[in-house]
Amino acid sequence: MGSPSSKKLWSGRFNERTHHLVEQFTVSLPFDRRLYPYDIQGSIAHSRTLERAKVFTKKECSIIIRGLEQIRTEIDQGQFVFHEEDEDIHMSIERRLTTLIGPLGGKLHTGRSRNDQVALDLRLYVKDALPQLTKEITNLQQALVMQARKHLPIIMPGYTHLQRAQPVLLAHHFLAYVEMLERDHNRLNDALKRLDVMPLGSGALAGTNYPVDRRLTAKLLGFSQITANSLDAVSDRDFVVEVLSALSILMVHLSRLSEELILWSSQEFQFIELPDSFCTGSSMMPQKKNPDVAELVRGKTGRVFGDLQATLTMLKGLPLSYNRDLQEDKEPLFDGLDTVSASVRIYGELMKRLTVRPDALSTAARTGGLLATELADYLVRKGVPFRESHAIVGQLVGDCLRQKKDLNQLTVQEFQKYAPHFGPDVLTILTPESAIARKAQTGGTARKQVLKQLNALEKRLAR
Amino acid sequence: MGSPSSKKLWSGRFNERTHHLVEQFTVSLPFDRRLYPYDIQGSIAHSRTLERAKVFTKKECSIIIRGLEQIRTEIDQGQFVFHEEDEDIHMSIERRLTTLIGPLGGKLHTGRSRNDQVALDLRLYVKDALPQLTKEITNLQQALVMQARKHLPIIMPGYTHLQRAQPVLLAHHFLAYVEMLERDHNRLNDALKRLDVMPLGSGALAGTNYPVDRRLTAKLLGFSQITANSLDAVSDRDFVVEVLSALSILMVHLSRLSEELILWSSQEFQFIELPDSFCTGSSMMPQKKNPDVAELVRGKTGRVFGDLQATLTMLKGLPLSYNRDLQEDKEPLFDGLDTVSASVRIYGELMKRLTVRPDALSTAARTGGLLATELADYLVRKGVPFRESHAIVGQLVGDCLRQKKDLNQLTVQEFQKYAPHFGPDVLTILTPESAIARKAQTGGTARKQVLKQLNALEKRLAR
Amino acid sequence: MGSPSSKKLWSGRFNERTHHLVEQFTVSLPFDRRLYPYDIQGSIAHSRTLERAKVFTKKECSIIIRGLEQIRTEIDQGQFVFHEEDEDIHMSIERRLTTLIGPLGGKLHTGRSRNDQVALDLRLYVKDALPQLTKEITNLQQALVMQARKHLPIIMPGYTHLQRAQPVLLAHHFLAYVEMLERDHNRLNDALKRLDVMPLGSGALAGTNYPVDRRLTAKLLGFSQITANSLDAVSDRDFVVEVLSALSILMVHLSRLSEELILWSSQEFQFIELPDSFCTGSSMMPQKKNPDVAELVRGKTGRVFGDLQATLTMLKGLPLSYNRDLQEDKEPLFDGLDTVSASVRIYGELMKRLTVRPDALSTAARTGGLLATELADYLVRKGVPFRESHAIVGQLVGDCLRQKKDLNQLTVQEFQKYAPHFGPDVLTILTPESAIARKAQTGGTARKQVLKQLNALEKRLAR
Amino acid sequence: MGSPSSKKLWSGRFNERTHHLVEQFTVSLPFDRRLYPYDIQGSIAHSRTLERAKVFTKKECSIIIRGLEQIRTEIDQGQFVFHEEDEDIHMSIERRLTTLIGPLGGKLHTGRSRNDQVALDLRLYVKDALPQLTKEITNLQQALVMQARKHLPIIMPGYTHLQRAQPVLLAHHFLAYVEMLERDHNRLNDALKRLDVMPLGSGALAGTNYPVDRRLTAKLLGFSQITANSLDAVSDRDFVVEVLSALSILMVHLSRLSEELILWSSQEFQFIELPDSFCTGSSMMPQKKNPDVAELVRGKTGRVFGDLQATLTMLKGLPLSYNRDLQEDKEPLFDGLDTVSASVRIYGELMKRLTVRPDALSTAARTGGLLATELADYLVRKGVPFRESHAIVGQLVGDCLRQKKDLNQLTVQEFQKYAPHFGPDVLTILTPESAIARKAQTGGTARKQVLKQLNALEKRLAR
Repeated sequence: MGSPSSKKLWSGRFNERTHHLVEQFTVSLPFDRRLYPYDIQGSIAHSRTLERAKVFTKKECSIIIRGLEQIRTEIDQGQFVFHEEDEDIHMSIERRLTTLIGPLGGKLHTGRSRNDQVALDLRLYVKDALPQLTKEITNLQQALVMQARKHLPIIMPGYTHLQRAQPVLLAHHFLAYVEMLERDHNRLNDALKRLDVMPLGSGALAGTNYPVDRRLTAKLLGFSQITANSLDAVSDRDFVVEVLSALSILMVHLSRLSEELILWSSQEFQFIELPDSFCTGSSMMPQKKNPDVAELVRGKTGRVFGDLQATLTMLKGLPLSYNRDLQEDKEPLFDGLDTVSASVRIYGELMKRLTVRPDALSTAARTGGLLATELADYLVRKGVPFRESHAIVGQLVGDCLRQKKDLNQLTVQEFQKYAPHFGPDVLTILTPESAIARKAQTGGTARKQVLKQLNALEKRLAR
Repeated sequence: MGSPSSKKLWSGRFNERTHHLVEQFTVSLPFDRRLYPYDIQGSIAHSRTLERAKVFTKKECSIIIRGLEQIRTEIDQGQFVFHEEDEDIHMSIERRLTTLIGPLGGKLHTGRSRNDQVALDLRLYVKDALPQLTKEITNLQQALVMQARKHLPIIMPGYTHLQRAQPVLLAHHFLAYVEMLERDHNRLNDALKRLDVMPLGSGALAGTNYPVDRRLTAKLLGFSQITANSLDAVSDRDFVVEVLSALSILMVHLSRLSEELILWSSQEFQFIELPDSFCTGSSMMPQKKNPDVAELVRGKTGRVFGDLQATLTMLKGLPLSYNRDLQEDKEPLFDGLDTVSASVRIYGELMKRLTVRPDALSTAARTGGLLATELADYLVRKGVPFRESHAIVGQLVGDCLRQKKDLNQLTVQEFQKYAPHFGPDVLTILTPESAIARKAQTGGTARKQVLKQLNALEKRLAR
Repeated sequence: MGSPSSKKLWSGRFNERTHHLVEQFTVSLPFDRRLYPYDIQGSIAHSRTLERAKVFTKKECSIIIRGLEQIRTEIDQGQFVFHEEDEDIHMSIERRLTTLIGPLGGKLHTGRSRNDQVALDLRLYVKDALPQLTKEITNLQQALVMQARKHLPIIMPGYTHLQRAQPVLLAHHFLAYVEMLERDHNRLNDALKRLDVMPLGSGALAGTNYPVDRRLTAKLLGFSQITANSLDAVSDRDFVVEVLSALSILMVHLSRLSEELILWSSQEFQFIELPDSFCTGSSMMPQKKNPDVAELVRGKTGRVFGDLQATLTMLKGLPLSYNRDLQEDKEPLFDGLDTVSASVRIYGELMKRLTVRPDALSTAARTGGLLATELADYLVRKGVPFRESHAIVGQLVGDCLRQKKDLNQLTVQEFQKYAPHFGPDVLTILTPESAIARKAQTGGTARKQVLKQLNALEKRLAR
Repeated sequence: MGSPSSKKLWSGRFNERTHHLVEQFTVSLPFDRRLYPYDIQGSIAHSRTLERAKVFTKKECSIIIRGLEQIRTEIDQGQFVFHEEDEDIHMSIERRLTTLIGPLGGKLHTGRSRNDQVALDLRLYVKDALPQLTKEITNLQQALVMQARKHLPIIMPGYTHLQRAQPVLLAHHFLAYVEMLERDHNRLNDALKRLDVMPLGSGALAGTNYPVDRRLTAKLLGFSQITANSLDAVSDRDFVVEVLSALSILMVHLSRLSEELILWSSQEFQFIELPDSFCTGSSMMPQKKNPDVAELVRGKTGRVFGDLQATLTMLKGLPLSYNRDLQEDKEPLFDGLDTVSASVRIYGELMKRLTVRPDALSTAARTGGLLATELADYLVRKGVPFRESHAIVGQLVGDCLRQKKDLNQLTVQEFQKYAPHFGPDVLTILTPESAIARKAQTGGTARKQVLKQLNALEKRLAR
């Protein structure tokens, strides 16, 4: 600070040096430096486009590109020296370029502004990050599918309101999460398509004075479209919010999975055993083995919601076009992507190593009146309207509860006290296995349906 | 309350009546009654599917359907009496059906649960609401496009950081909003496609015991797919969050437009005149004419963000499958859709009636050093590297400011004091018109580009 | 609408009637009508103050007040006719007043604006609502204290990470919530003190032209202070946000209690039985008894967070002084207060009726290595540094787990294999009762400490 | 990682090493290392308390304290080596202590858990941070007060709805912000008082087995109270949320100030000139001078709201007592405090250097019908009911607008066409100066009132 190098590239019209508090307050370098490969990639494409437009000579272009590539290597290898007074990664790179290749470096910014440059860099970053994330999602889905196949015959109590409701296959339960993650995957892909639009050439706000071929730039950078309105292009951060929305929904799903892993590994449920290597202990209580990973994923859900809220609030009420408020887009976006990627990755590994306790699951599935609905549907098949049969079975279940009996301890005669429609065949329906087998329509928990779905998902995930 | 009719349909197993505070606390009828047409539509399709599955006879089916249609008419015409103790719209309708057609009404709920029923109703509601909203979006886009065409030659100062930056066409500015709204439209359409999946037949959580053809139900209701996992189907509210996310982004756009309408109609800007019929006055200050509509739209932005946050938070950490927390999905969704629809609709009308003040705009566009970038690019064309030319012009602008002169008051000789590259042709570039004409690449503000974009948008909006 | 009565009171300067869409969009009457008693109370105090200032004669004042009181009676008794074109409750009342008492009604608005009027009404509303809420909080605290006293000897497993950790008294657990609620109570009281400032006399923004004694108005209305800056007074909504923040924290507490009620009433925990009258059943599964109240309270937590976020976002970036955005303060505030009041009230009733299952609790407290920390502290008392003793007991617990033994099944000899410091007295410390008794410092779970705290709280709650 | 030192202090009971992904995912050291002075301060007080309780000898205590002080010096001076596998700052310090003083270091954790330790550290951190922040707030208030005094006679247009409303003193406008900041100050002080409660001695959840004097610990650490319930003490993060709420409201105020600085320094308003040293330029447009600081503060508002939302969401629905989710409390809290402190500090400096343009302000105050309310009140003084006088003046203003005249260009005769009550004295009231002088009640913009308020505030800020 205060060093000769701190003269700003835009200082011509100013009478005073920037106050040091302002330098500290406005600097984005500590968080935007991760954009460097995209900034350099963008600058190379920009140079080639300017060459094609005859703004740069072939020779100028190749010197600039060589300089940029050297800078990329320097940063890759940790040899680049960042100066805080460079404000941002764009200025760091441009200044270093000028040191390396002389005044020619000062030509790089021809026909562009930091406004369209940063819009480009951020889109390139997201275009790179999302496919990595969706690959991790697929990995987690595969772990879930693997567990589903491995435990295909296992029956567990299905819950509503955290009360035991009806028996379901554990595999069916795992596949519910595969479905959620599949929607997340699609949602991120939709966002990716929508942001695949190249903004460079929008200048600061009005467009560029140079006869550049913007479609060429797009092609060089792998974009399928170019932006259609320069004012919109430099001030549009829809894609940041859309990605953070999709990430928030994904975290909702992971938070639900977390809740279940925590419940299921409690002493009360004991449905699963988490791997020791994915748990931690207590500094005070020697016996503790805590499901920290699941708790942290659940806890980090709020963080991603916060990132979403931060960007929405930041954008509210800004007049066109670029405003410096937009600098506050990067930290929430990076934090959201980092948090979600790490969460999905660690769950991919954890789910592979999960130990299921079949006995606990099936014991739980055999109690608690989980077959009451089967009884009601039995009566319907015997001609009783559903509401009436529901009332009859409700009465019957209530009496069992008061007498501390389980449904499958009743005799046919006892059943018949509640309705003459009960016959001896009623006893055959009162098993979890038969209850499950009856849920035989698409989406139901019958084994053949779950298997069908499992096969389909395995195929789809082989993408 | 306490009336004989308040006996709950599920009360068989219970020893006590529901506490009146609980009835008040859990009732959803005041807000879910707007689902009635979808609930009835769903019940009709459900009945037809049960008939096809031979669970209902043809006659039973037609009596039930006739009953349901009568109830729809009763509600449509305001003749239906809602009882608070009915808990929700589903119970209201079922109870009335049983009054109308006797015990047969008790058959309607065969093979379904409120869990899959409400999931269906809500999807039907959104499938109906979104196309209405996107139509309103198109209407607003058309108003903006109309204003753009009407004022095609008008030049205004483009802004960054709310500082005058470069001249742009007012039409270009209007079209920036059309682009934003186009993304909103696409985002809502993506959400619509993703939610176009039929959940009925998932039962409470495990599937249905009846041999129903779920694809038939889907076809009858206009869905293109059916859900693949019953546990997921009854607990999935992704679509609510996804829609509220898309609505939040849309409100960001409207809040930006609002900010500009407020700024532009201030005494300081005076760029536009809002119609009297879209403003209100003050109870105390007789001279006031306030841009209330724009302020309210801006203020309502927070409300939609709040709706989004409410549903995200509600879903966080819920174990599978259905939990009563999910009842809290409806009010935020309805509020978000209502708020955004009303805001888009009123802006569609307001934008049609907006009066532009061309003189104020073009006066503003002629001052403030808006052509400094043109000078810098002029020097680049004369061979000066951009950074150097930027510094020269910065110095020049700084001197003008200190001498309270405007750029276009300088002589060629004065220019040449800053750089020998300035020739007599420099004076010809110092007009807003020529500056605009030079921004001639796609997305730029040159008139031919704006016209091209205008034509393309008019065509697209004729959808 | 369009009726002769719809002429706006501020329409003098306008050329066009308000558009009907604008009337619908800007109207606040449907939600601000609940302010009527406060609006009338404020108007009466305003009239008295104007009389004292000799702006009104004694007679004028008493006619106006009589008119206002009649209007209050009309609304109280449901006889008042609201017209949508009245925009808001203030206009409704003023118009009716003029109908009742003639042109004199038009004097009521002398020296005030809707800006200071609504600021006053909203503060009066909150000043009334908060004490009602804190009374409900006290009621809930008393129910918790009552349960604590009733079950004073009951031991349960305390949890961290939802893993059993150490035995605690159930009473200690209940009192933890009493502490949380006590902070909520204090937080709301702080908010109440800070908002106890009277804004009337600030006019639209600049103050009033009339020689009114603002302290008199404050006294008449029960305020302890008057606002010190008119610009701030009409645009300050800090108190709305502060109240919603306090309510959000309160809902965090209730959501935690909800989670525990749901867990504890599950078949896996079975620690409590919820009263039938506070649960609901399933439309499909006859055996279900669901903890809906707890789920709904948990679900409504997001709603209150959303209300908070809505008001924060609404206020962001507004220039001084009053902006119409502020109209969006009322619905979130009312919704937050209503939601929280209903939740606290219903929990007050539910907690009184909660049935505890002592056997399930104490069985759970006797397993799971809950006494491992006691062992470690035993070794510390024998001179082993804590980290070492923690490691020894960790090893010991690990071996027990692998051998499926419980700690209290080991013999002294077996203990001594791990450390020579173990003596015969080790067996005496391995009971939940003695473990609890040792936590004898303030805040600990020892019975005497819990009893002390219980006594103190009972005293405090008798406020 | 994988180094011998990475063995966890709680690993006794575990069969597997922690997975490296889990170490990365759960580590808090990168962000909690800033707690080190508080952690050491807490450990010193803990040691002294254990000595007093005869758990430590005097000698042990002094060796431990000396070791801790050495570690503090090492970290202060940047010589401390942090190992990622240490999980958190507590483990880093404890491990280093054991290296320095041998097995005695293993005694430090006697009678405490990380759960009460981190609760303590975080409270100490906030107890230190808040007074620093409130000092910065006072500094900003003083800058505003200084500007108010400096420009006491300057008149400006006051705004509602961003429309010119009535003339006010610029000083009055500045003091409105001083009032807002005063409430922020008080709100933070209330939060500070409520969090001034010492949690150590709560153990992991149940209390401590050692006969420690918790009030002594509190005294040594400067707390005024001790926590009353151990379960609550380790899981209470109310203070984090309460502080973030207060910070969010503060950011609302700064965002409003930001909006005004941005508006006022636009070419349209030109009410102020920001110092060059607090602005930045454009990379492309040489003439630009942008109010970046104000834009960034406004943009950072969303960030603090996001921090608040993150912690609220994180806490929702957690069962008692400690859960690992709570680790997610620190980053939002630190980010919120850092962001707000930096924003308040930079505004303190910027406001001192603000240049006001009195001419632009007073020119603006002389137009736009700002005196219409004065006319209405004039008629009231002549006996016309306010509503009638409002309507008369509304008509009069409307006619002026249509004739493009200003109010003060009318003659007495012209006034009398609208109402016979107008006399020659009407002309004397039509100046901003007299309008301001009439707002002479407390809180009004009359010079004597503003001066009174200025004096009072200067006195109060001398705290």
